[in-house]
Amino acid sequence: MRVNNCADRSRLIAAAMGKEACDLTIGNVQFFNVFTGEVYPAEVDILDGTVIRVRTEDEEAIIPSKSFYDGGGRYLIPGFIDSHMHVESTMMIPENLSRAILPWGTTTVCTDPHEIGNVMGIEGVKFMLDNTKNGELRQYILAPSCIPSVPGKENAGAVFTAKEVGELLDMDGVIGIAEIMDFVGVYQDTERMHSIIDEGLKRDMYLQGHSPYVTGKELAAYRIGGPISDHESATAEEVTQKLRTGMHVNLRRSSLSGRLNFLVDGCRDLRWKDYVSICTDDVHAKDLLTVGHINNVVKLAIEEGLEEKEVIRMATLHAAREYNFEDLGAIAPGFVADIQIVDDLRGCRPHAVFASGKLIAEDGKYLGTDKLDRSRLSFPNTVNIPQIKSADDFVMYVPEGHTGDTITVNVMTPREDNRKLRTVVPTELPVKNGAVDISGHPGLCFVALVNRYGSGDTTIAVYDDFGLDHGALASTVSHDSHNLTVAYKDPEDALKAARALEACGGGVVAISDGKADVLELPVAGLMSTDPCAEIAANIDRVQASIDRISGGKLHILATAVMSLPVVPGPVITDLGLVDGLTQEFIPVFL
Amino acid sequence: MRVNNCADRSRLIAAAMGKEACDLTIGNVQFFNVFTGEVYPAEVDILDGTVIRVRTEDEEAIIPSKSFYDGGGRYLIPGFIDSHMHVESTMMIPENLSRAILPWGTTTVCTDPHEIGNVMGIEGVKFMLDNTKNGELRQYILAPSCIPSVPGKENAGAVFTAKEVGELLDMDGVIGIAEIMDFVGVYQDTERMHSIIDEGLKRDMYLQGHSPYVTGKELAAYRIGGPISDHESATAEEVTQKLRTGMHVNLRRSSLSGRLNFLVDGCRDLRWKDYVSICTDDVHAKDLLTVGHINNVVKLAIEEGLEEKEVIRMATLHAAREYNFEDLGAIAPGFVADIQIVDDLRGCRPHAVFASGKLIAEDGKYLGTDKLDRSRLSFPNTVNIPQIKSADDFVMYVPEGHTGDTITVNVMTPREDNRKLRTVVPTELPVKNGAVDISGHPGLCFVALVNRYGSGDTTIAVYDDFGLDHGALASTVSHDSHNLTVAYKDPEDALKAARALEACGGGVVAISDGKADVLELPVAGLMSTDPCAEIAANIDRVQASIDRISGGKLHILATAVMSLPVVPGPVITDLGLVDGLTQEFIPVFL
Repeated sequence: MRVNNCADRSRLIAAAMGKEACDLTIGNVQFFNVFTGEVYPAEVDILDGTVIRVRTEDEEAIIPSKSFYDGGGRYLIPGFIDSHMHVESTMMIPENLSRAILPWGTTTVCTDPHEIGNVMGIEGVKFMLDNTKNGELRQYILAPSCIPSVPGKENAGAVFTAKEVGELLDMDGVIGIAEIMDFVGVYQDTERMHSIIDEGLKRDMYLQGHSPYVTGKELAAYRIGGPISDHESATAEEVTQKLRTGMHVNLRRSSLSGRLNFLVDGCRDLRWKDYVSICTDDVHAKDLLTVGHINNVVKLAIEEGLEEKEVIRMATLHAAREYNFEDLGAIAPGFVADIQIVDDLRGCRPHAVFASGKLIAEDGKYLGTDKLDRSRLSFPNTVNIPQIKSADDFVMYVPEGHTGDTITVNVMTPREDNRKLRTVVPTELPVKNGAVDISGHPGLCFVALVNRYGSGDTTIAVYDDFGLDHGALASTVSHDSHNLTVAYKDPEDALKAARALEACGGGVVAISDGKADVLELPVAGLMSTDPCAEIAANIDRVQASIDRISGGKLHILATAVMSLPVVPGPVITDLGLVDGLTQEFIPVFL
Repeated sequence: MRVNNCADRSRLIAAAMGKEACDLTIGNVQFFNVFTGEVYPAEVDILDGTVIRVRTEDEEAIIPSKSFYDGGGRYLIPGFIDSHMHVESTMMIPENLSRAILPWGTTTVCTDPHEIGNVMGIEGVKFMLDNTKNGELRQYILAPSCIPSVPGKENAGAVFTAKEVGELLDMDGVIGIAEIMDFVGVYQDTERMHSIIDEGLKRDMYLQGHSPYVTGKELAAYRIGGPISDHESATAEEVTQKLRTGMHVNLRRSSLSGRLNFLVDGCRDLRWKDYVSICTDDVHAKDLLTVGHINNVVKLAIEEGLEEKEVIRMATLHAAREYNFEDLGAIAPGFVADIQIVDDLRGCRPHAVFASGKLIAEDGKYLGTDKLDRSRLSFPNTVNIPQIKSADDFVMYVPEGHTGDTITVNVMTPREDNRKLRTVVPTELPVKNGAVDISGHPGLCFVALVNRYGSGDTTIAVYDDFGLDHGALASTVSHDSHNLTVAYKDPEDALKAARALEACGGGVVAISDGKADVLELPVAGLMSTDPCAEIAANIDRVQASIDRISGGKLHILATAVMSLPVVPGPVITDLGLVDGLTQEFIPVFL
């Protein structure tokens, strides 16, 4: 796929031949040629956002360019490409993401909008597609493949079948199918996954994988099923196996994931690493402010023992080839002029960044002029919870007909091992006024999973050792269906939390001493139109409130990962408790 | 592009999961993994021509395959891919090429049918497309871009504009535009080349280059113009420059080209060589019989100093990625089971070759059963020379009105330097009966270039030091327009030669002592339906006759390269003498 197919080729050819002046020459640089591995002094001529020539010292420009940028003897490398990320996880809308990460040298991202897709369906994806046009960051979108993640076990705001995926694949800016998370569905060859993958295959498009712990025969079946990449390896052995299988391995360091070391261990000693690229998956606004984006993963990968030039290549050319971008990821005639000027090859913040040949950031400062125009943005309120009429709707009543002073409840309990995040522990609890009473158990709280798309469903369960001391924590960021999740002791606090998020269209709220402190995320209940720094400041503010109600034990996204039914171990959805490994329901009451 | 897109995916997935028996397991091999560079013992399971699993020693098959092939402890590597060749140069039709080169381990070729395209136009290309289906060799076709090579300076049997190229690109089995030889037209951005390249760009297809001696600003302009590869480098510096420019360099060793050493010198010390692949371009039947095909280039490249595993990778995975074949060039689940079992990694003749999982050759012997059925093949006689009515038509008459006993003629004369093959030397020659008389000059002969597509045009010139002692040598293999070329002393011999080729539909003929010895090439005057060994024997026989009339100085294809007006230096076409560098006519008589 040629990214730059619309350029005026005749003009570019004329410029190469010296018959037309270029817009810009970047000179006084050490040019790192990602094709050959060489580093040498060069000047780069650019016209219409396209590289025209890379001249070595003995090659003079035929006619001078209209402007010159002095690289100060620094390195010149291509802009970074993120091979897999979710924009929604940054809580920014795409155009603000552009403003936030260009200064870190990322010039292209391949994104999966499955968060907004779960909330708003195709309209949500269309918003993302449309909004990317307001930034200089090159943002490609992949069609979400698993909305909802497990049909029948949760209700999201949308259902994507092969038809919806196909419709998305035909849109401009959509370049493939996003992480095919239902790996069991792929290797068991379910009709749903087969038909969705068919949509990608018949268009000969990129099929992104997602296959944690998948090896051996399942890995072979998954690869045959279509997906060609993976970013979910949990062991070095898995990385090696996937590379042996011809999969592209995206080395991931997200704000949620741990160290890169085992990923690096899985490829360090392999002779060829051209199927390895770099991704961030889920990265927070604060990380984006402080440590950066792909550059940070580059830095960490080098610290873990990969050679710096090879890591730069992974973050540029390897990603481009994974996606078959024929004119991205390198600096050569005809390639898009996405360029960084850097002091070293180890993931530092770039001195200067050029996007399509335009100087867009210098020393961390974004230089684009297109400030966000909020007046052109409007979003529906996606928090639709008619079932919540009063605090009584957060009371955990025992089943009708139950008699006795106690009842045995499957209590969700954290228990981290290699593969499971939590378990359920049957626990006998008192019954008071027909409802479960946790007042005598300081370690317990309630969790309500409230469908926020108008279905009227709510599940209430008990959670042990969650970390909530008093008040409530609620969020509409709740992967992947993004229903309203409320953790609370007192139904009155839960109601306040729900009302606060209903009023603003979603976000995260802490109820402390009856007062609400809200991180407003009115765009699908997932994102804000605020810029990165403001979002980070708001996160800090609300986190401080959460620290007060939890004694510092709860992260602002603590409720965001308890409802995803493809996560191993029990989760809570709007339809009940579900075992993420078997994808079967677990009774709330025994 | 997924080559294997039509397979029954559900069946393949089931096989990977152990629910379906595979057709074949190849075991007892050292598996060379071209992705990672590792070599380890493994077993390869195959179903429906597709690799299902590559099991390492600790992984048992879940259910046994229907058959087992014992690799005898040898290496298992992917089948080779030729990144650029002309089938016509082998003088075989595609299905016989399949029989000839599969035993050497080549399982895929990317071919440019521009020879038959020049003779028969789209119908010729269609024949090639159709005939490839009769062999197990995977033969892809690229749409010829330069028919004729220089419009207005020669007449071929067809003219391809953007319309014809576009029509070809829409055919099944056509995967891109073939070598874009008019590199001057590309960097000067002529309307013809621009519009032809547009056809490829708008379909996002592969654009093959051809840019001898092109460096610096012209190389940048050529690359921007579209082509992404080159196989014509003549110096090491050129190879390095092209790789730096992000071009795919196809290391070529044809039956016509010299040593590989300078090509290897241009890439040996570069850290990454993933843009280097291997091609044969033009290879003769005899070479195919004796030294092989891609395996021979592999062997020579290793002899010139490249590391053997890397060369195998060039001849497999690198070529596949150059063409964006997503499931060729490696052995992994979902990939086409094109496999070689080899004693070493240095280009030896394979012990066994599997094409789409079928054992197709063993120890050099082709095992396919589909013998050529000549009854289903019929070809038009493409030698149409109405202008040749008698020997008088080969007499080189002086221009009307010329007076005097002598005339000055531009004599074509071999003069090899770095870039030119010959020159013209103005020479005063006697005139006898109104015609040029060379009888007193034993080193001279006539060369007639006879249009063989019915236009009626003929050019007659004088050639010095050609090597013909007596008789005549004529050929319809005459790049690229493939008109009838006749070298002779006596017009009677020329007439005999022309009549012999007219009768059989083309080929090569030697007239010795008035008798014709013909290599019949009735398929477009370029190919025979004979198998490789017979063609090689016939070549030997006719070469012996040519040795008699030339004292061993003339090769059977000596007349085949004197009429291509993109070759530097003077050439002869049916329209006159042409300077291949300036593409201007040169007068025959001064």
